[in-house]
Amino acid sequence: MNASQAQGRPQALWIEPDRDPVFALDQTRLPHETRVLEFTRVEQVAEAIRAMRVRGAPLIGIAAAFGLALAVREDASLAAEEAAARELLATRPTAVNLAWAIARVRAALAGALTGERAARAWAEAGQVLADEIAVCSAIGDHGLARLVALWRVRHTAGAETLNVLTHCNAGWLATGVWGTALAPVYKAREAGIPVHVWVDETRPRGQGASLTAWELGQAGVPHTLITDTMSGHVLQRGHADVCLVGSDRTTASGDVCNKIGTYLVALAAHDNHVPFYACVPTSSIDWTLDDGVLQVPIEERAQDEVTHARGLTVAGRIEAVRVGPEATTAANFAFDVTPARLVTGIVTEHGVFPASAAGLMPLREKIGV
Amino acid sequence: MNASQAQGRPQALWIEPDRDPVFALDQTRLPHETRVLEFTRVEQVAEAIRAMRVRGAPLIGIAAAFGLALAVREDASLAAEEAAARELLATRPTAVNLAWAIARVRAALAGALTGERAARAWAEAGQVLADEIAVCSAIGDHGLARLVALWRVRHTAGAETLNVLTHCNAGWLATGVWGTALAPVYKAREAGIPVHVWVDETRPRGQGASLTAWELGQAGVPHTLITDTMSGHVLQRGHADVCLVGSDRTTASGDVCNKIGTYLVALAAHDNHVPFYACVPTSSIDWTLDDGVLQVPIEERAQDEVTHARGLTVAGRIEAVRVGPEATTAANFAFDVTPARLVTGIVTEHGVFPASAAGLMPLREKIGV
Repeated sequence: MNASQAQGRPQALWIEPDRDPVFALDQTRLPHETRVLEFTRVEQVAEAIRAMRVRGAPLIGIAAAFGLALAVREDASLAAEEAAARELLATRPTAVNLAWAIARVRAALAGALTGERAARAWAEAGQVLADEIAVCSAIGDHGLARLVALWRVRHTAGAETLNVLTHCNAGWLATGVWGTALAPVYKAREAGIPVHVWVDETRPRGQGASLTAWELGQAGVPHTLITDTMSGHVLQRGHADVCLVGSDRTTASGDVCNKIGTYLVALAAHDNHVPFYACVPTSSIDWTLDDGVLQVPIEERAQDEVTHARGLTVAGRIEAVRVGPEATTAANFAFDVTPARLVTGIVTEHGVFPASAAGLMPLREKIGV
Repeated sequence: MNASQAQGRPQALWIEPDRDPVFALDQTRLPHETRVLEFTRVEQVAEAIRAMRVRGAPLIGIAAAFGLALAVREDASLAAEEAAARELLATRPTAVNLAWAIARVRAALAGALTGERAARAWAEAGQVLADEIAVCSAIGDHGLARLVALWRVRHTAGAETLNVLTHCNAGWLATGVWGTALAPVYKAREAGIPVHVWVDETRPRGQGASLTAWELGQAGVPHTLITDTMSGHVLQRGHADVCLVGSDRTTASGDVCNKIGTYLVALAAHDNHVPFYACVPTSSIDWTLDDGVLQVPIEERAQDEVTHARGLTVAGRIEAVRVGPEATTAANFAFDVTPARLVTGIVTEHGVFPASAAGLMPLREKIGV
């Protein structure tokens, strides 16, 4: 049994019963090299988050929880806990899950006796991981129901595969296990549906080419890599039956903020009457926002991600090669907003909801926000 | 005066009055190296077309015309003319302009005395170049009229720049001088309009990053490189006032077949009420087709263009680095079709026409097809 499949499914971060370290895949080396990191100290976890060896909002939260637990195991004092929390929080200041996971472990430690603190922190970190797995699994189940319905229609019409199109990476590499957008794909595969995935490269950082194609390959799911320019043609020619994407932030009105380029996929899906679903943990819905285009600030990143492309050279080095002229200025918008009118449904751990304020109201009532 | 600006404008291929060779930029080295090729024999021209050192349908035609003229200059026999034509035609069998330009030079040679043949061929090749320049210049003038009108509105509203978004390369590198989609941009610049261009990278081959960004830079036109994932966001946020693209083949009904990804740009322009123009020589309109999506076959190219990205390494070599996993399968659709309903107008050398069968009828009557 592979270490990264300790629970029967591929994992991006895992622990083993009778050993100390926390294991994680170094995602900066993928897809070219499978390097397993072993964390025994909080500093190692902080470095891995900072260097994006561990990435994806849910996975960052899980890693931070274990990082804090490692710190408390080494030094059970409140001062050590505070220092470790500060160090972890400073790694990626904008990641909501990071602060949330750290707060959760600290809450579990509140009032604990010194002798119990290490075990409590470790148990809570494990629970953070278990909870993420449960949420993603439920998203997968609800998404699966839609795929089963689509497959019935397609199969009856003579199709040999159910074709999913996805953008960026919202799979087990981003969440620990299952993923969000890819959870229904893995569930469909296990349910015996012959699923095939069109994988958008997702420039500038190329998460589709480097992470999604790799993790689908690891899980044995048939897939085809395309450049971001090709999704429109694939949808227009009827080569995709459904689009599944993740979301960094969804508004109360159903607008979906996700990796740059998602809006273009949604436009093409809409123009060709192909269903487009955003698969999101309820925790990532921002109930205070009702207009994504007006209210969601879009992060701009460094130009060199656009002027360069990262990959493996003939000599076997991972290197960023310059694709544009030396003097060219580039813009690097990291996310875009897909208006709710282009979104068929929001797939959450509590079910699938229409992408509108009214459509999301039952979810809001269910979770009491 | 720079050799490549012999006529006062940047050129991709040029001749000089009292010298023998034909000069051309080696486009496979751009944007990293400006290498000027000198052709004195038809074999050199054929190699350059085959290796895509000279690319862009109009430019290939011009180069082939001069290639044939070089052959006839070396050996004025009909056998030599036939052999040269055969060699040139075999370089890129699907390029319509190639066959057309060769036929034109051969027609000029028909019935000529042996002693006149070299001069006649050379004169006709020069005329092919001059005609392409005239067509592109006229496309530029008609496009400019639309840009002037847009700029009046934008300037009155307080804008400081007129923002154009383009995809792939339809500039002077593709046509010899001016370009098609970029001709209105260069004319606007000369008319004193403060134009700025958003340049789509255009994966997989990256013609936007490597050619369009470079040629705009050479001409001193302000521009910003973006990845293909970003055009939707740029249009949604009001950062672009108009989209200008070229076309490899336009149907009698106004459907536009162009570089893969054009359809996505058109969808985003339409969704945000931004005008979208295809700038095309009348010769590239295929009057026998009336449904681009159903009737235009889409070329599929080798996978490695998608699994790899080409650029300059840190060590200064031009190299293709692998961006996806080693085992991944990729698809490589080279073109897509933008339905006429998304196209604001077809800009030709004879004027701007609505993208519909009825809208293009006056053009059809004018040119008599």
